[in-house]
Amino acid sequence: MSSQFKTIGIIGKTIDPGIDQVITGISELLSQKKLKVLLEERTANQTPSLDMESASPEQLAQACNLIIVVGGDGTMLRAARTFCDHGIPMIGVNLGRLGFLADISVNEYQARIEEILNGEYQVEERTLLSATVLHDGKEVTHGDALNDVVVHKLEAAHMIETDTYINDNFVHTHRSDGIITSTATGSTAYALSGGGPIIEPNLEAMVIVPICPHTLSNRPIAIKSDSRVRITMSSTGRNKGQVICDGSLLHELDIGDEVLIQSKPTRLQLLHPKEYDYYQILRAKLHWAEHP
Amino acid sequence: MSSQFKTIGIIGKTIDPGIDQVITGISELLSQKKLKVLLEERTANQTPSLDMESASPEQLAQACNLIIVVGGDGTMLRAARTFCDHGIPMIGVNLGRLGFLADISVNEYQARIEEILNGEYQVEERTLLSATVLHDGKEVTHGDALNDVVVHKLEAAHMIETDTYINDNFVHTHRSDGIITSTATGSTAYALSGGGPIIEPNLEAMVIVPICPHTLSNRPIAIKSDSRVRITMSSTGRNKGQVICDGSLLHELDIGDEVLIQSKPTRLQLLHPKEYDYYQILRAKLHWAEHP
Amino acid sequence: MSSQFKTIGIIGKTIDPGIDQVITGISELLSQKKLKVLLEERTANQTPSLDMESASPEQLAQACNLIIVVGGDGTMLRAARTFCDHGIPMIGVNLGRLGFLADISVNEYQARIEEILNGEYQVEERTLLSATVLHDGKEVTHGDALNDVVVHKLEAAHMIETDTYINDNFVHTHRSDGIITSTATGSTAYALSGGGPIIEPNLEAMVIVPICPHTLSNRPIAIKSDSRVRITMSSTGRNKGQVICDGSLLHELDIGDEVLIQSKPTRLQLLHPKEYDYYQILRAKLHWAEHP
Amino acid sequence: MSSQFKTIGIIGKTIDPGIDQVITGISELLSQKKLKVLLEERTANQTPSLDMESASPEQLAQACNLIIVVGGDGTMLRAARTFCDHGIPMIGVNLGRLGFLADISVNEYQARIEEILNGEYQVEERTLLSATVLHDGKEVTHGDALNDVVVHKLEAAHMIETDTYINDNFVHTHRSDGIITSTATGSTAYALSGGGPIIEPNLEAMVIVPICPHTLSNRPIAIKSDSRVRITMSSTGRNKGQVICDGSLLHELDIGDEVLIQSKPTRLQLLHPKEYDYYQILRAKLHWAEHP
Repeated sequence: MSSQFKTIGIIGKTIDPGIDQVITGISELLSQKKLKVLLEERTANQTPSLDMESASPEQLAQACNLIIVVGGDGTMLRAARTFCDHGIPMIGVNLGRLGFLADISVNEYQARIEEILNGEYQVEERTLLSATVLHDGKEVTHGDALNDVVVHKLEAAHMIETDTYINDNFVHTHRSDGIITSTATGSTAYALSGGGPIIEPNLEAMVIVPICPHTLSNRPIAIKSDSRVRITMSSTGRNKGQVICDGSLLHELDIGDEVLIQSKPTRLQLLHPKEYDYYQILRAKLHWAEHP
Repeated sequence: MSSQFKTIGIIGKTIDPGIDQVITGISELLSQKKLKVLLEERTANQTPSLDMESASPEQLAQACNLIIVVGGDGTMLRAARTFCDHGIPMIGVNLGRLGFLADISVNEYQARIEEILNGEYQVEERTLLSATVLHDGKEVTHGDALNDVVVHKLEAAHMIETDTYINDNFVHTHRSDGIITSTATGSTAYALSGGGPIIEPNLEAMVIVPICPHTLSNRPIAIKSDSRVRITMSSTGRNKGQVICDGSLLHELDIGDEVLIQSKPTRLQLLHPKEYDYYQILRAKLHWAEHP
Repeated sequence: MSSQFKTIGIIGKTIDPGIDQVITGISELLSQKKLKVLLEERTANQTPSLDMESASPEQLAQACNLIIVVGGDGTMLRAARTFCDHGIPMIGVNLGRLGFLADISVNEYQARIEEILNGEYQVEERTLLSATVLHDGKEVTHGDALNDVVVHKLEAAHMIETDTYINDNFVHTHRSDGIITSTATGSTAYALSGGGPIIEPNLEAMVIVPICPHTLSNRPIAIKSDSRVRITMSSTGRNKGQVICDGSLLHELDIGDEVLIQSKPTRLQLLHPKEYDYYQILRAKLHWAEHP
Repeated sequence: MSSQFKTIGIIGKTIDPGIDQVITGISELLSQKKLKVLLEERTANQTPSLDMESASPEQLAQACNLIIVVGGDGTMLRAARTFCDHGIPMIGVNLGRLGFLADISVNEYQARIEEILNGEYQVEERTLLSATVLHDGKEVTHGDALNDVVVHKLEAAHMIETDTYINDNFVHTHRSDGIITSTATGSTAYALSGGGPIIEPNLEAMVIVPICPHTLSNRPIAIKSDSRVRITMSSTGRNKGQVICDGSLLHELDIGDEVLIQSKPTRLQLLHPKEYDYYQILRAKLHWAEHP
């Protein structure tokens, strides 16, 4: 049986030692199956030991039916934002401990990838967020996030004051270190450290988590993922902020600036090995004993 | 224009002082509009000063197009469990501070009820939970809850050990005071005190909240409201438990007993005044300042 | 060099498998050193395989210079309450994972006990609490606790309302599942599950931790260990409570009843191996990675 | 009876509207009592409407027996750091809501100040922290704090990794937004937002509170106030940090840099009106209902 995936792109976290061997191994596996393999050009440039055909992200997006990410969850986040709009499914091979996203262990990547090529996998759709920054009511920039959009204080010493709206309904005015708006995917990342709940990936929800809120009765709020979240830098506040998407600075925020956060219409297609078990990863990551 | 609600049942929290005057006022208002009014028999029995036609809950369920609850959220919970299966919409008049459910102030009930009779209202559907207790694999009892189903230690001094499954996937083994499975409605009740998130009422979700978990990395988990939650008293545990639905004891639990928790197929139809604002109630209840 | 400990009592957690071999081993070790060994009579009765001289707790208290507890932290708690007033130092051998109190592993008890007999140990004093229950202003019972005194709801479904006073200053009225008053020792037990801080053992402090408080801005309060804590069942409350000392029910509480909690004047003398490291145990128990 | 306070310094938060009238009022009150009044020069410069003798902080420190701070807790923090070493007692008049430190309402400052001048007051000593930054083992700067010393990530998007030591005992390695080391005074400030406990002012304790820790089982730790806390930027970390004292940036931190935090030997003498009640302020600030 021939694979549904004819052309496969590979993206690697190039600073991981041993990455070249794993990529070579995957490449050989795919070539044996007569599949075309393209290495993302940045990965290629930073790993000169690899002698493979390389391509720009745009070319990968045009040519590939599957993206294999070799690295950790951080590399998955970057790839997800890049390829989400093109509807190309993605799998993740982890060089370290299993991640929430990169859930194929390097120790068994061959067997797992073979299975997936044979059509034995689970598909999971993950929602991404789109953040738009408005200054004087005009859009100045926008960014995407698979995990979270964080409106954060600019200077560590100065908390910010923000007004939060959901579907144009005023929710609250916060003084805090910032406000995390997280996807279900991101609920096990920064939002969890900030006191947010775990959101099962198949629940169509976002969660708004205040970071160190001044009002002690503030609590995370889980809302429908098709909600429009608007966070504004309060006119009564005195300090500047910044917007961070998946851990990358997007833009600084003045008093009065607004950030609109919505789910993107296209979703990430995440492929998992057929025995993938979300709760098992959760238990392993959070050190939950099976039996105390 | 005549009201769509021809026969209206009234249920009261009879220990509230002044309840009889409010019920009389509502009754007169409805009678002026040529609507039939039935007083729930328990409310009638406990408020002999009221001279109104009374009826059993079953008769109310057959006859009424609308139930008006006079009391607080606790009275609403009881009425919701009673009338949910019959699809009769419900409104709540609050004698004290506005509740999350009973959101019409006694100070303005006349205007609000008139509006609702005129068709000016918001409808909100709320999911209820159904809990089934199994002993040796056989159902021994079941109960309903609008807020939450709590598997709780039986004796205060002895934490329980439970295994939690979602759609038959093992989630975790907990040693704790108990596990709350809460609806969105219940997310602002006991689950919130236990550290759970606020779940917006229109998000189709349940949340599982451990109470004082022994494993410090345990966190609330929000899941789809059509999930099947199963909580079992671990075979390695040593202490008995109990199931509590909306604050009422349902059953004791032995080691090995199971509690199945699912959303009920029918939902509560909750009518709100047209200017109802969930976030305003949230801010008022949780003392969130509009501006610090 | 002869040991300062001439007569040594042994107390065991008799349900632990293999306890008799460990006690026999300890007994032989001590006998070789010409030290007198007494087995607590309850341990003796429940472990008939042991052929050792037994004695009542009172006799142990009179005769011994050292108590060796074989079991876990629970057995240590019981022994601490029993022998605290007699100023007899105590060490704990743990048959399972190292505990916070029973910190000598069964795998190396011989070496550790030899060192301690040779005077190579650390002494740590731990404060215990005394709880007195008052009904109509009259003392009805009292109890001791090394970990915590918990004023708890009596019925799981009914939260209690309590007023808390510190040195006769009113602190707050709580509606909650209960209030934990914990020693530094107990700060890593139930109080930690309830959201309390870790209190270093040498900080002379108690901590008052509300359990699932209805008011979301309630927070644990750390106070001086020589404070007088008074918790009363509020006259405006409706539900009964109970007092639990170190996980054992002390007494039920009616509306209006009071619980006075103070540090005991005598302290537990806890002996640790010389390489004892509180933070190492903390890291191991709480799964804190040394390096992520 | 003549006051023990002969020369009194006044410091104001000059951006507060109406500050000049309050300072004038206080000044006249003191002058009527034949007391010498000195206005801090910065306050004088920024409030030209005030025609009073001004003096530098050094001159105030030499001349004054009492400092009156007019403003909020922020102004108190600044004054406390300035005058702490000189042992000059301090009182705070609050132009807004009562603060934890500035606890005399502007509405009754005359009566309260008269009482204090007459010797009717409570004295409370508050511990301050001293922070020393070491680079390559050499001191590069130091700062003082009445509330807290925060080792914080430098860039919002990049958590830091820190190793914490107490009295040279390794405690834990954290990946987090930062670590707060707070006094009892600071326990109701940023540390509280970060999940720390309330520390009663007379408990000689510091509390170490992780901010959004990556390891979910991390918890605040309360320790003796004479402990030496050392927080180092882990050699395995990748991101820079910064030290913040009472909300002011002290210094940036490279990988390997260390921050030593200890209590200062001199303490702030805080004078309170005789009816001052710490718990009353706590209840008011945290919106704790007296009775639900």
